[in-house]
Amino acid sequence: MTDLQTMPMGDHRVPDGVSLPPAPPPPLEDVEPVQRRTPAEEARTLVAQNRVGALASLSEDGVPWSSLVAYVTLDDGSPVLCVSTLAEHGRNLQRDQRASLMVSHRVQGPDPLAKGRVTLAGHVERPEGELLETARAAYIDKVPSSSLYALFDDFSFWVLRVERVRWVGGYGVMDSVDAASYAAAEPDPVGDAGGAVSHLNADHADALLSMARAFTGYTDAESARCTGADRYGLDLMVATPRGTAPTRVGFLEPVQDMDGLRQATIELTRRAEAVLA
Amino acid sequence: MTDLQTMPMGDHRVPDGVSLPPAPPPPLEDVEPVQRRTPAEEARTLVAQNRVGALASLSEDGVPWSSLVAYVTLDDGSPVLCVSTLAEHGRNLQRDQRASLMVSHRVQGPDPLAKGRVTLAGHVERPEGELLETARAAYIDKVPSSSLYALFDDFSFWVLRVERVRWVGGYGVMDSVDAASYAAAEPDPVGDAGGAVSHLNADHADALLSMARAFTGYTDAESARCTGADRYGLDLMVATPRGTAPTRVGFLEPVQDMDGLRQATIELTRRAEAVLA
Repeated sequence: MTDLQTMPMGDHRVPDGVSLPPAPPPPLEDVEPVQRRTPAEEARTLVAQNRVGALASLSEDGVPWSSLVAYVTLDDGSPVLCVSTLAEHGRNLQRDQRASLMVSHRVQGPDPLAKGRVTLAGHVERPEGELLETARAAYIDKVPSSSLYALFDDFSFWVLRVERVRWVGGYGVMDSVDAASYAAAEPDPVGDAGGAVSHLNADHADALLSMARAFTGYTDAESARCTGADRYGLDLMVATPRGTAPTRVGFLEPVQDMDGLRQATIELTRRAEAVLA
Repeated sequence: MTDLQTMPMGDHRVPDGVSLPPAPPPPLEDVEPVQRRTPAEEARTLVAQNRVGALASLSEDGVPWSSLVAYVTLDDGSPVLCVSTLAEHGRNLQRDQRASLMVSHRVQGPDPLAKGRVTLAGHVERPEGELLETARAAYIDKVPSSSLYALFDDFSFWVLRVERVRWVGGYGVMDSVDAASYAAAEPDPVGDAGGAVSHLNADHADALLSMARAFTGYTDAESARCTGADRYGLDLMVATPRGTAPTRVGFLEPVQDMDGLRQATIELTRRAEAVLA
């Protein structure tokens, strides 16, 4: 099953004669919805997990200019950039402070648009005084190669003051986030759980199946694969005799780090086995 | 040695009191310059090797908008996009056709700006008739997940007519390319030679050292590591008693595919051993 088969049709205009793939089977029993990251948390997490993004600035001829930048973030999630006026984007920011930064998951494979990305739009400003020192120290700490060029006179630090945020989680999963919600949200401390997900699928298929049967309403699940992990729970894809479906199991409380994720998964397995016993 | 230590200072303004890292040692003997890909070939190759990029379009409020897009290319390297008017970038292109697309190498590790990226800037236009059929077929072939949504009425195909190109190969390596040169250049058929490079370093360190000693003028090389491979030759980093330095060896003639790369490397090794014998 591809993500597309679970794509919500929403407002898309589907022409006559185009047949959509069948919807995934529903759970056999009703269950409580499971907490997930808010769009603001998704945005902050994506930005925290990455170090490069695509800057859009305005070129002198009015064409919006897309360029690669490294960034770090202030505590409120504002990106800090360090660019040279020898580069077009550096001259663009000097001339016009309107800009946006797009950060995306690194996607491999045949479906490049199935994963998350976020656009932060607003105005850049030159930090001064203490803020400049904070911005510079954070940048050089996280982008060590900048320790040389950040001192050149043609390089400047810029802080992107985020005014609006658009998060896209994949097909049909998207939302807008206002500046205050973005600034207040916490990046997920679980971060990139790819290793944990691979481990669960490789070594704990039975535990995943128990969780699916006990907690998701898919009591006829024959197998379950973990497709994602975050501070609030695990995303699962369950296979049933009626077809495959995406679902989710929640932790008792949000986890604070990778070790917490491991403990919460063990606890979830124990509870699932008790329910099924 | 990091790429930064070989960063050409060019036009950068280095303040007093900032000490630059030492320049790499020169070769001990003069050698002919080795052919490398032109900036236009670099741009076409980067675009051909990737399937996602960052689009910059103009939002209604005038802010340049950075977003993730999948793309394919026409024979002249013009990117083809397929976007929905339910998404901000789709509405932007409908309102204002000025746009650019940035494509970058996927970079891991501590130095996110050491590798190549390219910005293609121009205007998008809606393909019609035969061009629309060509664009649609190419897109659905290379982005299979689009076979469903590309038919929705809210999605449109756009061709980016490239008017100017800026290629950045890494620190201090960059050039502008005009539209005609971009359209006429051929993507490197060697493409992503990462596997070949790893293989050379893992299993053929002696051959690399022979090439370095025989052909690069670094007759005092003690070891050599391959850092890149393309249709015209191999990039090497040589270690000498005087320090490490980037250099390059060229094939007798451009190779046409990965098998040609293997043959040319074997031939280069044979010639190097003959020179050193």
